Amino acid sequence: MPYESHLLSFSKGEHKAPELVGLNPRGKVPILRDGAYGLYESLAILTYLDRKHPTPPIFGESAEEAGQIMRVIMEHECYGSDAISAFSRPLLFGRLEVQRDQVLLAIDEARAELTRLESELAARPFLATSKISAADVVVYPQIKTLERAFGKPGADTIEHDLGPLPKVFPRLAAWCARIEALPGYDATYPPHWREG
Amino acid sequence: MPYESHLLSFSKGEHKAPELVGLNPRGKVPILRDGAYGLYESLAILTYLDRKHPTPPIFGESAEEAGQIMRVIMEHECYGSDAISAFSRPLLFGRLEVQRDQVLLAIDEARAELTRLESELAARPFLATSKISAADVVVYPQIKTLERAFGKPGADTIEHDLGPLPKVFPRLAAWCARIEALPGYDATYPPHWREG
Repeated sequence: MPYESHLLSFSKGEHKAPELVGLNPRGKVPILRDGAYGLYESLAILTYLDRKHPTPPIFGESAEEAGQIMRVIMEHECYGSDAISAFSRPLLFGRLEVQRDQVLLAIDEARAELTRLESELAARPFLATSKISAADVVVYPQIKTLERAFGKPGADTIEHDLGPLPKVFPRLAAWCARIEALPGYDATYPPHWREG
Repeated sequence: MPYESHLLSFSKGEHKAPELVGLNPRGKVPILRDGAYGLYESLAILTYLDRKHPTPPIFGESAEEAGQIMRVIMEHECYGSDAISAFSRPLLFGRLEVQRDQVLLAIDEARAELTRLESELAARPFLATSKISAADVVVYPQIKTLERAFGKPGADTIEHDLGPLPKVFPRLAAWCARIEALPGYDATYPPHWREG
């Protein structure tokens, strides 16, 4: 469907501009505006878009699928996301020197969460169902961000067993490749990631 | 709809029994079993039940409502729940003496989150829409747990402005009363809360 995207610079604080804080009082992104309707929180935006454009149904074709998809999403929101971010964010934001302890402490939990995702993929090609669903859409960016963290300065000074993905979590790596082959994938790629 | 509930004792570790860990490898509740289908994570269970029994539609009648409901839910999951729990859990579990600092530190953020909920209720009788929705079902137990914490030993030694609810957050108090008047409410009340 047609849409217009706006790239914001975090380092310039553009996400804290009055127009955006008016749309999300927490001053965070993503934010969706559709005519007079405004919405924030990524899962809420996915829910809205799915209801507006229900084909394909990314929240499941049956009650059983819908439950499974939301289960994977909420496990990611409540456990996976924090564990993986604790490892990758200090690397991504150049804070490894002051947050090395946090990064080291995060390895065990991040490994446990990645292992759970790897085991979901033993049963099916996508995380929650046999087709791509909202669960994949929610989890994929974080796995890609973790891979990006592996390449950041200082990452080679951390002893960990979370990657490289194809070696340690081959099913997750194959799942990433499956997502990257989908039509429309290129349009989702962060422009500043292409630069380096 | 007919269902059978199982009350588990946390203090006896009943939620860590092999049968339950088989249903949820994280050893947490709630867990739903419906024939051969098993599911955990409360929002996933609500999603499943809504798809199985879509009347009334607790995830919204329109895309706009669905987005709004999920926005309130995710704000609670990502911000509200942690802030309010940080205040109330030490009181509920008799850990005030060792966690007094955590309780005091939590007051500002808990107030900010309760204030946001109070302001949602300025526009409508329930948190996300004009009728009860999954957002109310998700948030209500935590508000009730906070009220319960106010009555726990030592709570009167903490200087805070989070309650009593009817005085500080009158719309939240009226919303609680609105929920408590709903048919079926009594069946949701934790049996051990009646004892004291």
